[in-house]
Amino acid sequence: MAKVKVGIINVTGYIGMEVARLLYQHPKVELATVTGRSAKGQKLGEFLPHLSGIDLTVKADLDKVDFVFSALPHGENVAPVVAALEKGAKTVDLSGDFRLKDAAEYRKWYKIAHSAPDYLKEAVYGLTELNREQVAKARLVANPGCYPTGAILALAPALKEGLIEPDIIFDSKSGVSGAGRTLTLNTHYAEAAENVSAYALDGHRHLPEMVQELQKLAPKSKLSVTFLPHLIPMTRGILTSCYAALKAGKVSEGDKGKQEIRKLYQDFYHGEPFVRVVSVPPQTKQTWGSNLCLLYPTVDIRTNRLIVIACIDNLVKGGAGQAIQNMNLMLGFPETMGLDMLAVYP
Amino acid sequence: MAKVKVGIINVTGYIGMEVARLLYQHPKVELATVTGRSAKGQKLGEFLPHLSGIDLTVKADLDKVDFVFSALPHGENVAPVVAALEKGAKTVDLSGDFRLKDAAEYRKWYKIAHSAPDYLKEAVYGLTELNREQVAKARLVANPGCYPTGAILALAPALKEGLIEPDIIFDSKSGVSGAGRTLTLNTHYAEAAENVSAYALDGHRHLPEMVQELQKLAPKSKLSVTFLPHLIPMTRGILTSCYAALKAGKVSEGDKGKQEIRKLYQDFYHGEPFVRVVSVPPQTKQTWGSNLCLLYPTVDIRTNRLIVIACIDNLVKGGAGQAIQNMNLMLGFPETMGLDMLAVYP
Amino acid sequence: MAKVKVGIINVTGYIGMEVARLLYQHPKVELATVTGRSAKGQKLGEFLPHLSGIDLTVKADLDKVDFVFSALPHGENVAPVVAALEKGAKTVDLSGDFRLKDAAEYRKWYKIAHSAPDYLKEAVYGLTELNREQVAKARLVANPGCYPTGAILALAPALKEGLIEPDIIFDSKSGVSGAGRTLTLNTHYAEAAENVSAYALDGHRHLPEMVQELQKLAPKSKLSVTFLPHLIPMTRGILTSCYAALKAGKVSEGDKGKQEIRKLYQDFYHGEPFVRVVSVPPQTKQTWGSNLCLLYPTVDIRTNRLIVIACIDNLVKGGAGQAIQNMNLMLGFPETMGLDMLAVYP
Amino acid sequence: MAKVKVGIINVTGYIGMEVARLLYQHPKVELATVTGRSAKGQKLGEFLPHLSGIDLTVKADLDKVDFVFSALPHGENVAPVVAALEKGAKTVDLSGDFRLKDAAEYRKWYKIAHSAPDYLKEAVYGLTELNREQVAKARLVANPGCYPTGAILALAPALKEGLIEPDIIFDSKSGVSGAGRTLTLNTHYAEAAENVSAYALDGHRHLPEMVQELQKLAPKSKLSVTFLPHLIPMTRGILTSCYAALKAGKVSEGDKGKQEIRKLYQDFYHGEPFVRVVSVPPQTKQTWGSNLCLLYPTVDIRTNRLIVIACIDNLVKGGAGQAIQNMNLMLGFPETMGLDMLAVYP
Repeated sequence: MAKVKVGIINVTGYIGMEVARLLYQHPKVELATVTGRSAKGQKLGEFLPHLSGIDLTVKADLDKVDFVFSALPHGENVAPVVAALEKGAKTVDLSGDFRLKDAAEYRKWYKIAHSAPDYLKEAVYGLTELNREQVAKARLVANPGCYPTGAILALAPALKEGLIEPDIIFDSKSGVSGAGRTLTLNTHYAEAAENVSAYALDGHRHLPEMVQELQKLAPKSKLSVTFLPHLIPMTRGILTSCYAALKAGKVSEGDKGKQEIRKLYQDFYHGEPFVRVVSVPPQTKQTWGSNLCLLYPTVDIRTNRLIVIACIDNLVKGGAGQAIQNMNLMLGFPETMGLDMLAVYP
Repeated sequence: MAKVKVGIINVTGYIGMEVARLLYQHPKVELATVTGRSAKGQKLGEFLPHLSGIDLTVKADLDKVDFVFSALPHGENVAPVVAALEKGAKTVDLSGDFRLKDAAEYRKWYKIAHSAPDYLKEAVYGLTELNREQVAKARLVANPGCYPTGAILALAPALKEGLIEPDIIFDSKSGVSGAGRTLTLNTHYAEAAENVSAYALDGHRHLPEMVQELQKLAPKSKLSVTFLPHLIPMTRGILTSCYAALKAGKVSEGDKGKQEIRKLYQDFYHGEPFVRVVSVPPQTKQTWGSNLCLLYPTVDIRTNRLIVIACIDNLVKGGAGQAIQNMNLMLGFPETMGLDMLAVYP
Repeated sequence: MAKVKVGIINVTGYIGMEVARLLYQHPKVELATVTGRSAKGQKLGEFLPHLSGIDLTVKADLDKVDFVFSALPHGENVAPVVAALEKGAKTVDLSGDFRLKDAAEYRKWYKIAHSAPDYLKEAVYGLTELNREQVAKARLVANPGCYPTGAILALAPALKEGLIEPDIIFDSKSGVSGAGRTLTLNTHYAEAAENVSAYALDGHRHLPEMVQELQKLAPKSKLSVTFLPHLIPMTRGILTSCYAALKAGKVSEGDKGKQEIRKLYQDFYHGEPFVRVVSVPPQTKQTWGSNLCLLYPTVDIRTNRLIVIACIDNLVKGGAGQAIQNMNLMLGFPETMGLDMLAVYP
Repeated sequence: MAKVKVGIINVTGYIGMEVARLLYQHPKVELATVTGRSAKGQKLGEFLPHLSGIDLTVKADLDKVDFVFSALPHGENVAPVVAALEKGAKTVDLSGDFRLKDAAEYRKWYKIAHSAPDYLKEAVYGLTELNREQVAKARLVANPGCYPTGAILALAPALKEGLIEPDIIFDSKSGVSGAGRTLTLNTHYAEAAENVSAYALDGHRHLPEMVQELQKLAPKSKLSVTFLPHLIPMTRGILTSCYAALKAGKVSEGDKGKQEIRKLYQDFYHGEPFVRVVSVPPQTKQTWGSNLCLLYPTVDIRTNRLIVIACIDNLVKGGAGQAIQNMNLMLGFPETMGLDMLAVYP
């Protein structure tokens, strides 16, 4: 059977190159064409030696393909995604350009007007575990942001079951690859190593999509969400610590309550190939290079507060891996195809 | 004038050796004697080459001195501290052995009975900025834990002014030197590098001292404190992100509220040599090797939540440096003596 | 077709667990049984969460299998390897226990007598690229040490062609996973991070196997080899810088000589799936998690010295990956089966 | 007594800011004025928070001072240094602009003509331990490069005593702060972390000054020096491993030879405040933030090769600290003034 021809728009960023890396092991698709402004005309392996095994020359524009991954910076994907769709290629956009349903909200957070608001409406928010059926039918999927992926999976069961009060805090710790490949002083080795800082204290672009999706899970509440990201001296991984007060009487006291919560989460994610509810606190490195999301829900007994720890590899489940998971559904392949590898540890 | 003779009990741990390092630059004291089980009989520089400049042989017991720093593991300091006090030496204990006022609470958290509960009462909690006068008169100071130092300084102004509701969350990110020099798998390089995890989800020993001291600042509230520490792949530094809802009407809306909060913090810590209220989010590395605590208070406008970021070097302001700051007061020296160095950056 | 049943002796070390991780993707073998003293009776995923995808309980002794990987510490593999062979299982030993041909040399470096010297003779040194045919026929392969793998591949072409003088220096920089999972102060995060040191200045156990194998390639010379390893603050990877004087007249002067050398190396390794002669200096991270060895040969024109840079992932090509590469040959599978993945970068 | 007024040209690079940090503790000088293109008009603490303790505004040009440190990039220091000298200020230049005696050699390596070749002749190469008397009399000192500092100190005793053959290899491992604060992909955290690479394989600018100074120590030999630098995932520190064959009969065989070599080195550096000949292999972190150079000389007995390990903090002894050491001599202060601190460890 002929393989599906796939293209990557902007293979030169960390997300784009990770899509290429992962597709290398996919048995049913062929990476046929890649673009990248800064590397046009070069062989992939010339400027990305770890991809030397892929024999492709970087182009200015995609050749005709069946499926497209768009991985340009925010604001730049609208035109090429629309063009790809119009040529008949199903598409996953990996930026924030199609995640928000509300064009005004998009303008508020991204500081530009959206030039194709109809597609905003059509796009399916590709948090696969929560929107599996819609993803399978979609021609355009907006791949979730790296932070929202872990954060939403972490609280979805509690919100759906009505266990928690609407005041929610997400304290996220991210490796620096999340900041991309663009050079900045904050990601200069000598400044980032052995250092931690909080950033985006006035609001991060991933907040509105978190609120949009979480609110759907608790339509009767008016959520009040604080999200604070931190830069951690590591390359890959996001650990998000989620805090919310348990509603009175929803959970037993003491250790029994912890077990009830864990049981509820295990049931909620039963059978999910890429979400694992674990019984000891997880570590980001246990997801390195893999598409797993590890969740550890527990209760702070002294304060009756739910705490959930979520770990992902920001470039895989928080980016390229989830995009391929979505592609598998959109193309009718088994959801885990090409993604069934163990984390590289240590 | 003769220098004050000082001794360190257990120079072989990270806190003990950091006291030695810092005292090297103190003009009025002489490090006269050091103990350390594992290194008895060795020259300091033999097993701690960075201290080669100090010509001392490690002993089993302290010689007679005027001032003692006790830096044994929790549970082991009671006897030697009492002995030192009885010989007339003023003492700073750097463990948790004298921090809690309530012996029952000590037993609950440290799993042993306290053998000298009278000294628990006498000991002054050495968070210098808040207890300066008592420290100056004390013969026994319980040096705060590394986590409580930043956390308490971060919320003291808000609590004292009655600005926040009693539900408080401390999300702390600590370098691995905080776990000490004892070998564990979690602090093995290949496991700790490029990795983040939460730990002590069932309760950390630093929580009760946080509650004890914060509660003093807000005697009319019943605080409900969640504290969650995380292990970060760096050697030194703690960044604590503090979250608490602002009471209605206490602070103006929008950016004006942020400025009011910053002003309040700046006033509260005006003139403090080691607490700096900064106007951009701080980074732990900006405190490396120094006794500074950097505080960044702000408001999450969407949720009317106070957020305060606190950065310290866990081994200096969170340990050895604050201990010397306390010693200076106890001996009548200027508080900054021997501690007036800039952070080593990058 | 039934899969080949494979066992791992000592899955709890970094090399053993890496064999397990890599075998997970092998289409023709089934990891059937694993041993590990410290974890006996536990599920693999309980103490090694990244291996949760493998449903196995750790045993004291291997069940009957067709193929064995032995990954105990040096000195402990002789008995279990002999037992496995006698039960008919082909075996790759990943320690130093079968690498040296001379039992006296083994005793000198490993400080114990070898209890099965006949098997020393039988064992094939499994540097696959140099000994492919013998490996294919072997029932016992001694997998090379991590340092020798890169070092020998780096100089094999030059020695075989008689280009260099017999004075050779290998200066190696290794990530700390090479020191294993046993806890030591040198591999404690706070001591190993942001630090570099040389070690084994009086001789490293990997030296004799380097000399043994290199000498075979240059039987007419008497090699004089200096090997100095360094501990680098990273988890995986070895970069070895090799220095040797070029024999007079063997290579053209200037840049032309560099090109001749590169051409010679490219020809020597033409068609090798896991050795890539690159045209810009390689980086260890370009091999992370993959079985590649990257080689960059050049000439220091001012001194007419050959310099070769070799990069590998010490746990893959320097350990588990090469072991599986050898297994493939021993079992008649394509050499790259299960090993054809790209490096995880960044 | 009035303090000496000091200025720093280009305080915004890592070397310039380190001079500022160290001068903060100097009792006899006052940092009076600093320049920096990118930060003109800003307070030092605004863009370099760790220097908040210094109350200075960055200027375009230096005010009148008694002493100048020039820390612009290579090629840009000639004019400002000449200007400073002509205004009567003694000067230490921290770049490569005055290190080479031969203007043609300068042009060859730095790709520009030197506009003040007379000053090349006048400048004293400020490797303090070897040129102490000339430094004390100089008005212009060319501070050595970070790599040459450790490398030359490592072999000076052996060369001076005529112990080694003229074929010398320096294999250096440097932290990334050595590459400066300019943003590059190689020093981007996600690319530099957990990675090692060799660079400058066609020749590094520090080579000619090494050869120039080493050749002075062995005037009868014609040295043949290979120098290969490597980028290490750490912020500070250089470890250089030096290799040279011992001349026949110069040193006893076996361990006795090692002891003789160590004795010779200890005698050579007897009384030196900042060079320490150590008896166990040193680590770069043992020099973090200090002006020490640690040397470990030994013999590879199997090959009769001298090996010397040299460790420094590249920003201190390899830059700002040595510059202040030179300043002390030039101003008639005790050589260790302001530099007598212990390394920050861990």
